[in-house]
Amino acid sequence: MSDQLITHIRNFVQLTDEEAELISSKVTLVKLKKKAFVLTPGKLCKANYFVAKGLMRLYFISKKDIEQITQFALENWWITDYDSVDSKRPSHFYIQAVEDTEVIVLDQLTEDELIARIPAFEHYLRLMLQKAFTAAQRRMEMLNNMTDEERYRSFSSRFPDFNQRVPQYMVASYLGITPQFISRVRARKPRIS
Amino acid sequence: MSDQLITHIRNFVQLTDEEAELISSKVTLVKLKKKAFVLTPGKLCKANYFVAKGLMRLYFISKKDIEQITQFALENWWITDYDSVDSKRPSHFYIQAVEDTEVIVLDQLTEDELIARIPAFEHYLRLMLQKAFTAAQRRMEMLNNMTDEERYRSFSSRFPDFNQRVPQYMVASYLGITPQFISRVRARKPRIS
Repeated sequence: MSDQLITHIRNFVQLTDEEAELISSKVTLVKLKKKAFVLTPGKLCKANYFVAKGLMRLYFISKKDIEQITQFALENWWITDYDSVDSKRPSHFYIQAVEDTEVIVLDQLTEDELIARIPAFEHYLRLMLQKAFTAAQRRMEMLNNMTDEERYRSFSSRFPDFNQRVPQYMVASYLGITPQFISRVRARKPRIS
Repeated sequence: MSDQLITHIRNFVQLTDEEAELISSKVTLVKLKKKAFVLTPGKLCKANYFVAKGLMRLYFISKKDIEQITQFALENWWITDYDSVDSKRPSHFYIQAVEDTEVIVLDQLTEDELIARIPAFEHYLRLMLQKAFTAAQRRMEMLNNMTDEERYRSFSSRFPDFNQRVPQYMVASYLGITPQFISRVRARKPRIS
């Protein structure tokens, strides 16, 4: 059930079979229907979620009443609200399944326990955080250094299947552009078929 | 010389005296004059920098030839280009001292060695990454959810001494507003003196 997580961890660090079994015994697989939430504003975020299958998003509702997407998590990505987990203050984010999704849930106490017992697991989690931080920095750079069209084209070429899986308005929200703009760019794009 | 780093680490994790001595023996203190660089575009970023005294910034030059600041690091913050460190590809960022600054340099090979020998040190570095990632998420939220004026006022109240230490155009670049806008807001602000 948590094979995919173990395989992913072993891409980065070495785990003994005992360690792999310990991790597997401590995490939970949760199947989410499309649009189901694992976190809503006002709640404490108490876990880190590994996407085994499907797609999750983290977003908030802006003062202008607009859904603002801060992060997507495809297969093999982790997603959580670290701010709420760390500070133990209620979150103001939603974490939601964009399609039918299977997540492996690592709750905070379990994470602390596994880290204490398996140094390689902490090493793996640190590397994942480093990737997430790098992605956040790259996104900020992209938002500041590309025209709307460049941003859309760069995103589409880096994640080609994304446009099939995600409603246009979500891609627009993530990229800081309007859905109408995406429609116009798509209309201009020469089609190969 | 690295007392400040050891003190900072001990705020988060326990270190034996031997571990603290090992860390101290492996890092280097570098004194930087205002405007000195530890990283420029085209170079490989090979180290993580802990600000013991002073202030650093990470920025890039946008296509419109504008300095775009992605991160500041005050005392007790780490700063690096993880993307370049991880990928071993040349950076396209500058990391520069905003004022006369003392940084403790942890080069990548030393970091790997210390992590392998001191699990608590890895734990500390993971917590620092978590804080940095949280700050990056909060900044993205701020950029998307506040008016220019709210952003400036929120930043000024969270980091009151920043405006004294940092040229106005740098604060503007970080907040995604114009220096002229800051001047106007300051002019409107009632002064207590």
